[in-house]
Amino acid sequence: MNPEMNSGLDQASLALAARAQDHVNSDRLATAIATLARFGGRDDGGVARQTLTPIDLEARAWLVAQARALGCEVFIDNCANLFFRRPGKEALPAVLTGSHVDTQPVGGKLDGAYGVLAGLEVIAALNDAGIQTRRPVEVVVWTNEEGSRFGPGTMGSSAYVNPGLLQGYRASTDGSGASFGDALDVALAAAGDLPRRAGPEAAAAFIELHIEQGPVLEAAGTPLGVVTGIQSVRWYRVQCTGVAAHAGTTPMDIRNDAMATAISLAQKLYAFVAGEAASNMKLTLGRWHVDPNSINTIPGKVEFTIDVRCLDESVLVRFDQQLHGWIDTHARRDGISLECFFSRTPTTFPQAMLQVVERGCVRACSQAGLAPPLRLTSGAFHDAMYLADHCPTAMIFTPSKAGISHNAAEDTDQHELYLGAQALAHVVTELANQ
Amino acid sequence: MNPEMNSGLDQASLALAARAQDHVNSDRLATAIATLARFGGRDDGGVARQTLTPIDLEARAWLVAQARALGCEVFIDNCANLFFRRPGKEALPAVLTGSHVDTQPVGGKLDGAYGVLAGLEVIAALNDAGIQTRRPVEVVVWTNEEGSRFGPGTMGSSAYVNPGLLQGYRASTDGSGASFGDALDVALAAAGDLPRRAGPEAAAAFIELHIEQGPVLEAAGTPLGVVTGIQSVRWYRVQCTGVAAHAGTTPMDIRNDAMATAISLAQKLYAFVAGEAASNMKLTLGRWHVDPNSINTIPGKVEFTIDVRCLDESVLVRFDQQLHGWIDTHARRDGISLECFFSRTPTTFPQAMLQVVERGCVRACSQAGLAPPLRLTSGAFHDAMYLADHCPTAMIFTPSKAGISHNAAEDTDQHELYLGAQALAHVVTELANQ
Repeated sequence: MNPEMNSGLDQASLALAARAQDHVNSDRLATAIATLARFGGRDDGGVARQTLTPIDLEARAWLVAQARALGCEVFIDNCANLFFRRPGKEALPAVLTGSHVDTQPVGGKLDGAYGVLAGLEVIAALNDAGIQTRRPVEVVVWTNEEGSRFGPGTMGSSAYVNPGLLQGYRASTDGSGASFGDALDVALAAAGDLPRRAGPEAAAAFIELHIEQGPVLEAAGTPLGVVTGIQSVRWYRVQCTGVAAHAGTTPMDIRNDAMATAISLAQKLYAFVAGEAASNMKLTLGRWHVDPNSINTIPGKVEFTIDVRCLDESVLVRFDQQLHGWIDTHARRDGISLECFFSRTPTTFPQAMLQVVERGCVRACSQAGLAPPLRLTSGAFHDAMYLADHCPTAMIFTPSKAGISHNAAEDTDQHELYLGAQALAHVVTELANQ
Repeated sequence: MNPEMNSGLDQASLALAARAQDHVNSDRLATAIATLARFGGRDDGGVARQTLTPIDLEARAWLVAQARALGCEVFIDNCANLFFRRPGKEALPAVLTGSHVDTQPVGGKLDGAYGVLAGLEVIAALNDAGIQTRRPVEVVVWTNEEGSRFGPGTMGSSAYVNPGLLQGYRASTDGSGASFGDALDVALAAAGDLPRRAGPEAAAAFIELHIEQGPVLEAAGTPLGVVTGIQSVRWYRVQCTGVAAHAGTTPMDIRNDAMATAISLAQKLYAFVAGEAASNMKLTLGRWHVDPNSINTIPGKVEFTIDVRCLDESVLVRFDQQLHGWIDTHARRDGISLECFFSRTPTTFPQAMLQVVERGCVRACSQAGLAPPLRLTSGAFHDAMYLADHCPTAMIFTPSKAGISHNAAEDTDQHELYLGAQALAHVVTELANQ
């Protein structure tokens, strides 16, 4: 995108964007969200739809049917990313929007799903408004954003931008030992009738609408956020190996307790982040595997993951040095292994895209009589993080109640979801007419 | 048992005990151990035969066939404990020996199994020596000693001594949600042809032969230990409840991280036990469950078990007070629940039984030209702990290499296993002729 294209704003194009925005239908969007949430829906309101599980494949088939009903062409690629294409007047690179529909083991109904369904709502609004855009518009469903079943996350979007990654991803296994490659082949076979895209195509822009999954917008009292970038993140796997032995008979001074080793490291990590309050660094020790995991056996192996994030990359660099230092000087260092298996420096979205996003958000907020949008950074990573390497990219956020996500209690007011879809319609339409 | 019965030692009775001891066959015992280890045997030498699993039922059927081949009558009771009875000359209460054949998720081939197979070896030795004892001898296989599949442990022996416990045990569930009651009914149905004992019968004595599962005998250089008692033990379940939320978006100061709570408690526990080196207190945090156990979600629930043991009960009383104090004063106390679900004060075996055990061990060590037996306490609990409430009880230990147990690497020299069975034969025969 050429920033100069925005400097002299085309009033006719903005009028089309406004018309698309005004045709977004709140009830239709709400119904779509409720319907998709039934795939893997739980009694507690949560959704359990990890990537490429049978229920995820059912959800994808339902989305394909929805897209076709809206007149879209549907494509799939080698990572099972789905593309719902509304043709443009000219054979130009498309404007992409979308997100993912896989969830955490227990997630909410909005994380990812909202961005995909709002994308389809934009297409429905364009249809209703009788608008034919200059460029094609494509709603994308990225595979395995969550990374909870097969690590790492954002497989679909990263492999789209860098197809060479896919071969390595195929070897990733889930808790039952099933490989991502095998699960992918099942998904591709199930979608056998869809035309396959061999690789990435040139794109005019990517815009992702997502719930914030944090408390900032709610605290600010605005329904919409213009996301300026994504904080840096590192994922580590720490494995502590000791000797499994009987809990009642092995004296403390001769036991090699893998859990004692893990706890001694974990408390250092928490202490480090407590000293970094000013930098707003975040630390999560989220996944643990203890072997043999028996009350009366000393743990022989403990593996845990570290998720650290910060807007200031230098804090993570210092954390990394400290972590290596603690392990190198640990009495049980021979039994400790450390692997950094995912790392991203901060992502910064281009100013020209932020201006387009801001226009859509300002109009939606203003028409609703609500506070103007807030600029903020994303604590979570998103598929947009990788798309930013491929084409001009930006994101829109809507508030998350109490900042809660990755949880059955994840929620956003329906009116705010509606305003987010309105903003998205404005942005997509403006970009698709450039 | 009347201690005075031992004061004037009956030389004819001791001669019979020595004859039984001398008929113990090392190769036959080794073959039996190797054969039973095939039920659930693993490539790494470990055995995976948790209680009442299909492979455990197969192992039990094999044991029943072995006992019948030795001329035993076989009985079962309502907790699926098996009794292999060699009749005596008189209708007197029997001398019981035995142990258990269930294992940890991955255990060794000796823990429990050794005591049962050595008991059958004693019966074979009595047969070979042509000895008919005054009292019946029974080899018992106690159900679910380990407690790793269904908690608590020592279900079979405790329900034998106190049948009222069984109803509560039936509700215990394993990781897959299956109940002990249902698993028990399957086991009882599979043993449909065995006569059922309605409740406990009077017993003259119980003597359990077991591997030490600790390092004391190996360090002392003796093949046999006379166990004077069992240290006290408490099992707790700690549940920390926080709020699952997104790892990247939730600021540290507003997150309620159940793992951070658990780690803060765990480090206090390790610090307490480090201050109790003089009392030889032992602490194991062996079983952990983290929910949702995902890299990029703050843990919403963390449950872990505490196993504490000490010869000095007062140390565990202080530990219990501290533990309650730490929870009561914890910033997250509302999210922490604590349950003590198993507790035993120390067990002390009667002196008269220790004298009988010592005679058998001294003769076996002396004939082998090895160091005399050592008196020691048991760090592990055993079925003998409950039998001590029912009849005069004692235990014999053989060394564990490097003190390792509850591990595939668990091992004991074949010659030491042989000497343990020899000692058992002496003790059982002496008791059975009283």
